Amino acid sequence: MVDIATRVYNHKWKIDPIVRSLIDTDFYKLLMCQSVFRNRPDTTVTFSLINRTRSIRLAELVDEGELREQLDHVRGLRLSRGESTWLRGNTFYGRRQMFRSDFMEFLEGLRLPPYQLEKRDGQYELIFEGKWPEVMLWEIPALAILMELRSRAVLKDMGRFELQVLYARAMTRLWEKVQALRQLDNLRIADFGTRRRHSFLWQDWCVQAMMEGLGERFTGTSNCLIAMRRDIEAIGTNAHELPMVYAALADTDEELRRAPYDVLADWHEEHEGNLRVILPDTYGTAGFLEHAPDWLAGWTGIRIDSGDPVEGAEAAIRWWRERGEDPRRKLIIFSDGLDVEKIVDLHHRFHDRVKVSFGWGTLLTNDFRGLVAGDGLAPFSLVCKAVAANGRPTVKLSDNPAKATGPADEIARYRRIFEATEQQAIPVLV
Amino acid sequence: MVDIATRVYNHKWKIDPIVRSLIDTDFYKLLMCQSVFRNRPDTTVTFSLINRTRSIRLAELVDEGELREQLDHVRGLRLSRGESTWLRGNTFYGRRQMFRSDFMEFLEGLRLPPYQLEKRDGQYELIFEGKWPEVMLWEIPALAILMELRSRAVLKDMGRFELQVLYARAMTRLWEKVQALRQLDNLRIADFGTRRRHSFLWQDWCVQAMMEGLGERFTGTSNCLIAMRRDIEAIGTNAHELPMVYAALADTDEELRRAPYDVLADWHEEHEGNLRVILPDTYGTAGFLEHAPDWLAGWTGIRIDSGDPVEGAEAAIRWWRERGEDPRRKLIIFSDGLDVEKIVDLHHRFHDRVKVSFGWGTLLTNDFRGLVAGDGLAPFSLVCKAVAANGRPTVKLSDNPAKATGPADEIARYRRIFEATEQQAIPVLV
Repeated sequence: MVDIATRVYNHKWKIDPIVRSLIDTDFYKLLMCQSVFRNRPDTTVTFSLINRTRSIRLAELVDEGELREQLDHVRGLRLSRGESTWLRGNTFYGRRQMFRSDFMEFLEGLRLPPYQLEKRDGQYELIFEGKWPEVMLWEIPALAILMELRSRAVLKDMGRFELQVLYARAMTRLWEKVQALRQLDNLRIADFGTRRRHSFLWQDWCVQAMMEGLGERFTGTSNCLIAMRRDIEAIGTNAHELPMVYAALADTDEELRRAPYDVLADWHEEHEGNLRVILPDTYGTAGFLEHAPDWLAGWTGIRIDSGDPVEGAEAAIRWWRERGEDPRRKLIIFSDGLDVEKIVDLHHRFHDRVKVSFGWGTLLTNDFRGLVAGDGLAPFSLVCKAVAANGRPTVKLSDNPAKATGPADEIARYRRIFEATEQQAIPVLV
Repeated sequence: MVDIATRVYNHKWKIDPIVRSLIDTDFYKLLMCQSVFRNRPDTTVTFSLINRTRSIRLAELVDEGELREQLDHVRGLRLSRGESTWLRGNTFYGRRQMFRSDFMEFLEGLRLPPYQLEKRDGQYELIFEGKWPEVMLWEIPALAILMELRSRAVLKDMGRFELQVLYARAMTRLWEKVQALRQLDNLRIADFGTRRRHSFLWQDWCVQAMMEGLGERFTGTSNCLIAMRRDIEAIGTNAHELPMVYAALADTDEELRRAPYDVLADWHEEHEGNLRVILPDTYGTAGFLEHAPDWLAGWTGIRIDSGDPVEGAEAAIRWWRERGEDPRRKLIIFSDGLDVEKIVDLHHRFHDRVKVSFGWGTLLTNDFRGLVAGDGLAPFSLVCKAVAANGRPTVKLSDNPAKATGPADEIARYRRIFEATEQQAIPVLV
């Protein structure tokens, strides 16, 4: 039986929306937003879309009208009553009322600020400017929209059964990954793939497949909407955005040197336990750990998001030992460019020495490599970064020079101040 | 939106039926039925289920109650008005009113006769007895029911995503076959897979995938219900059943010798063109062709359904030449144990020398080999044959001794009368 009402309702859609909710975003964005709302609410921040894979000419693939429709749709979104209830009433990391009342009121009233869109040299220049706690929530929807519009553009001339077989292949591939991962006892892995997902529905499928295939090994998803709908944990802590903006706001070299620790001092006041996770690589992991205050060694864990992950984890373990901490009680979260082989290797290397956890992103939710002619669905490296704060440029060094961002002279200044040694560039796949 | 009415309606089902219509059967069954209804309506015939793959203990896998429910459901089926309209009004092989009015009236009033079911030695003994034109229509639904109940039994403990990936794999496999076949120019191939399909829905999917993937190379399906619903050609001619029953009814050796030709003489009166297709292997192709009357050489084609297909086709070509016919105007239909490799090979060998067509059965609609643990979904060799007519046993020799049926002494007598030479047994996969 066809449900006539559903069919007529579907015909009434102006668009098939990609981002259907303000909480179709990463959980850590909301955590950071609350921190920013409390500590730096009046900072003006600019976010910009950056396609690191220049060979993919997005402005030629994706129709500008469709892109505007999707972005406009997001601007029309408001937090729903049910979403608000879920955020207010849920337990995150075992704690109730993670979100304060004043922040929830802010979120309930929020609409995302305007965007600026232009085409240049086959790419879209997409810029968001506004108060930090508002504008920062554009990052994830902007990325998800561009990624999915690209998928749709590639798929639009395919036949119905060709499409079904395409997804059959992608499902089979993911299931084989799940089968390989279920061999690992004590694995703890979460979905971090919202921003570069193939599509919303595909991410939702991947999460459900992980739930069935991995059982308790699957710890949750970074995506709040999917976490709510599938009744699983929302996962995440914090990102480079915080130290980048704090650093850009520093007036002196001394303030700049202190900025990454100031961020974590603010975080320390707000959060405890599993939310106390250091992201040390913004201006080089080595220097960060060397100069870190002792109270940071008491934090629960470290997230390794660039550079060689084995070296990064070894550095963290050494650092904990030097500071008199027992690494076996510490958590290392790997989240950079993971796929099964790397996960298996890192798990075997470290799971007896520290608590290990994985945040699996693009190659979980967008591994369509080789599935269409010309490899037109292969994931690519699209980011949306805070590029300026109160008019000053931001800088990121990372442990991989290929991931560095910012003006060249500022990069040089940051290198000097943070004593960042020259490191080897690792090609960025995603 | 969930369609509540659909959901409630589904809850009301007593069973999830496997055979949903009297025309969920092979087209050639209806053609033969009409011929039998005209020429031998009062013959009493016994059909019996025979599982040639003894290692699959069907009575242990498939619940007897469920089997009875499905068989009872088929006994409750009546030809619907729309089905009758389709049979009366459709063009088959370019001809309207293929089915005569008296036959249509018979079919509209038909209910299938009772069945006898017993368990013996891990197998089901399933027997149908009745007037030939009625009882013969049990063959295809009985096979389809047993095949699908076996699939359901194997699938019943699998998880939702595990199931989805299973079908994803089967779809991918079929699509790869379709991709390989679309390389063949002038290919003509039809679905003959009803009787040993994995399930009804899967056959329907396979047919639609062939439609999209092969376009005009796909000539239709033997399944009338799917042909009607998907608006494609219903394909088929005749089967061993006709000469087997005619032969069993013969009173003398001379009548027996003549029986296979008597069948085709009756057919000759009723049909022309593409329906004049010889199935020569019931009692050995070599003897059949050697003793065939000249008017048979004028028929359109030959179907090769056992033995070495290259030898069979070469024998047919030689025979046409000997009888002064031009093989390039003749049709050879291959229909025995086909898969892509064999189809490609036979196409390359013969498509320049005769018109070639393929009837692709089990490995189209039931290739789940290797897709579950223990290979529990691999197809197996289940048949439902006319074993007696008016109390006399039937015999089939075939060009493959592994496919021979009947009592040993009768097989010996038939061998002598039809001068059937000893041939090499070829393992029967499906």
